[in-house]
Amino acid sequence: MSFDRLQEKINAMKNPSVVGLDPALEHIPPQILERHIAMQGETLEAAVAAVCEFNLGLIDALCDIVPAVKPQSAYYEVLGPGGVLALKQTCDYAKKKGMYVICDGKRNDIGSTAQAYASAYLGTVKVGTAALCSFDVDALTVNAYLGSDGIKPFIDMSVKYDKAVFALVKTSNPSSGELQDRLIGGDRIYTLVGDLMQDISKETVGKYGYTCVGAVVGATYPEEAEFLRSRLKHTFFLVPGYGAQGGSAAEAVKAFDKNGHGAIVNSSRGIIAAWKKSDEDYAIAARNEALRMRDEFRRALS
Amino acid sequence: MSFDRLQEKINAMKNPSVVGLDPALEHIPPQILERHIAMQGETLEAAVAAVCEFNLGLIDALCDIVPAVKPQSAYYEVLGPGGVLALKQTCDYAKKKGMYVICDGKRNDIGSTAQAYASAYLGTVKVGTAALCSFDVDALTVNAYLGSDGIKPFIDMSVKYDKAVFALVKTSNPSSGELQDRLIGGDRIYTLVGDLMQDISKETVGKYGYTCVGAVVGATYPEEAEFLRSRLKHTFFLVPGYGAQGGSAAEAVKAFDKNGHGAIVNSSRGIIAAWKKSDEDYAIAARNEALRMRDEFRRALS
Repeated sequence: MSFDRLQEKINAMKNPSVVGLDPALEHIPPQILERHIAMQGETLEAAVAAVCEFNLGLIDALCDIVPAVKPQSAYYEVLGPGGVLALKQTCDYAKKKGMYVICDGKRNDIGSTAQAYASAYLGTVKVGTAALCSFDVDALTVNAYLGSDGIKPFIDMSVKYDKAVFALVKTSNPSSGELQDRLIGGDRIYTLVGDLMQDISKETVGKYGYTCVGAVVGATYPEEAEFLRSRLKHTFFLVPGYGAQGGSAAEAVKAFDKNGHGAIVNSSRGIIAAWKKSDEDYAIAARNEALRMRDEFRRALS
Repeated sequence: MSFDRLQEKINAMKNPSVVGLDPALEHIPPQILERHIAMQGETLEAAVAAVCEFNLGLIDALCDIVPAVKPQSAYYEVLGPGGVLALKQTCDYAKKKGMYVICDGKRNDIGSTAQAYASAYLGTVKVGTAALCSFDVDALTVNAYLGSDGIKPFIDMSVKYDKAVFALVKTSNPSSGELQDRLIGGDRIYTLVGDLMQDISKETVGKYGYTCVGAVVGATYPEEAEFLRSRLKHTFFLVPGYGAQGGSAAEAVKAFDKNGHGAIVNSSRGIIAAWKKSDEDYAIAARNEALRMRDEFRRALS
C-alpha cells in the first residue's frame, strides 16, 4: 500500500517532511538560468534546462535525508510542453534516487475524465496491446468538488498500481475558509469532504491504518488540523503551509497522530530557495535547511 | 473582452456550441492509430501522432461552422509530455483557424501557484527580459474550492491579456450534488460559488454584460441551470452534459438568457466519435453531427 511505503520511508529517515519542487524561475540561482540563456537565448527551452539542472541538484542533495518530493505541476506547465517533460524527468529522477513522489496537480473532473487523469499519473494507458506509463508517480493531489464519482477512478487505479491520492480538504491559503469553512448542520464543508473521502476509500486501509485517499490539511489552520486528525483516523495528511506561508512546526504537528505517524509536512520555497539567505551553493543551502526542518520536527514530535 | 469575442463568434455562426476535443484513443478511428503504430510501434509517440492527426482533421472540418473548441487536458496528459505538446499544437491550430479555444484543465491552487497556472494558460512567463507564451488559449476552466485568492490571479491575467476562465459551479456528473447541492442557510453551495465568482470579477463586465469569470453549469441539471441563469446576470455559462451524458437541447437552453445569449453548450463524444454511428469518414461524420446540433439549438432557442 502506497502510504505504507511512504510511512516506512519517513520512519527510516526519522523525517516526516516533503520538499516542494516548485521551481519558479525566481527561485533558481541567476547564474544557472543565465548560463542556459547564454546557450539557448531567452527561450522556454533555456528555462526548462535551468529547471532540470536545479531540480536534479536538489534531489541529489536531499535524497538521503528527505523521504519525498512534491513537484507542483503549475511551475512546469508554465514553461509549456517542454516544462511538462521537465516535470516527468524530475519525477523519474527522484524515484530513481529512492524518493516518494507526490505530483501536486490538484486534478479533478467527471468520472470518465478522472479515469484519464488517473491513468496519466498513477496507472497506464493502452496503445494497441501495450500498457504504457506516462508520469507514474506515487501519489497525486486531487480536488473533490465534483464528489465521489470524480475520485473513485483514482481509488481504483491506486489499488491496482499501489498508488495514492491526497484530496484537498482544508487548504492553507488565506481565503480557504470562504467555502471550506461554511457550516452545514453542525459540520464545516471541509469536514464533510474529509468524511466522504475516508468513507469511499475505507476498503483500502493498509498496514499503518490509512486508506489510499489522503487529505491536504494546511499547517496554517492548526485548530482545524487537530480536529481533522482526531476525526479522520484512517486518513494520511499532506500538510502544506509550514515555513514561508507562516505555519510553525508546533502548528504542523497537530496533523500527526499520537505515535507521530499519519502526516508529512511540505516545505517548498523555504528549502529550494534557502540559497537566498545563505552564502552556500543552492544545493548545500537546501540540504542544510532540510536538516534544520527535520531536526525541528524530530523535537516537536518527541 | 474575451467573452465579447466568444459571443460575437457565436452570433456570426448562429451556433452556440463548442466541440470537446477529448481524444481518448477509443474515439479515434482504428485505422488512424494503426497507421501510426505501424510506423512507430505501440508507443506513446504513435498515440500522440494519431491524436494530432485526428484533431487537425476535426478542426478543418468544423472551423467554419463551430465557433469554439474545448480540448480536455486529461486526454493529452495521459500520453505524457508528448501528449501535452499535442494539446498545444491542437490549441494553436484551432486558434489559427479562427476558433475560440477553451482549455479544460480545471486548474486550481493557492494564490502564488494559481498565478503560475494563469501565466501558463492565459498569460506570459518571463525568461530573462523576454515575456513568452506557453499555451496562450482564450479561456481555461478552473475549480474554486480554494476560494477567491485562488481565482484572482486568473482575473488579473484575463484583464491584462483579454482572456477568461470558467469556474466549476454546478457540474454535470451524477455525484455533483454530494457537495455542490448542500444547503447553507437557504442557499446551495453551487449558488454561493456562483455568487462569489460573479462578485470578485464584477469590475470586468464587457459589452455583452459578462465578467471574465464564467461558470460551468451542467445541462444534466436543468432546474439548477434555470435558477443560476436567473441569478447570475453577468456570468457566461459553459454547459457540458448535452448529448452523450444525457442532457437534451431543451434542457441545455435553460442556461441561455432571453436573448439567446450568455451560454455555450459542449458536445465531445457525440461529435468527435460520430463516425462510430456512420459510414462516413470521421471528419465528415463530425461535421454532420455538429450541423445537426447547431440546427437543433437554433430551433430550441428560437
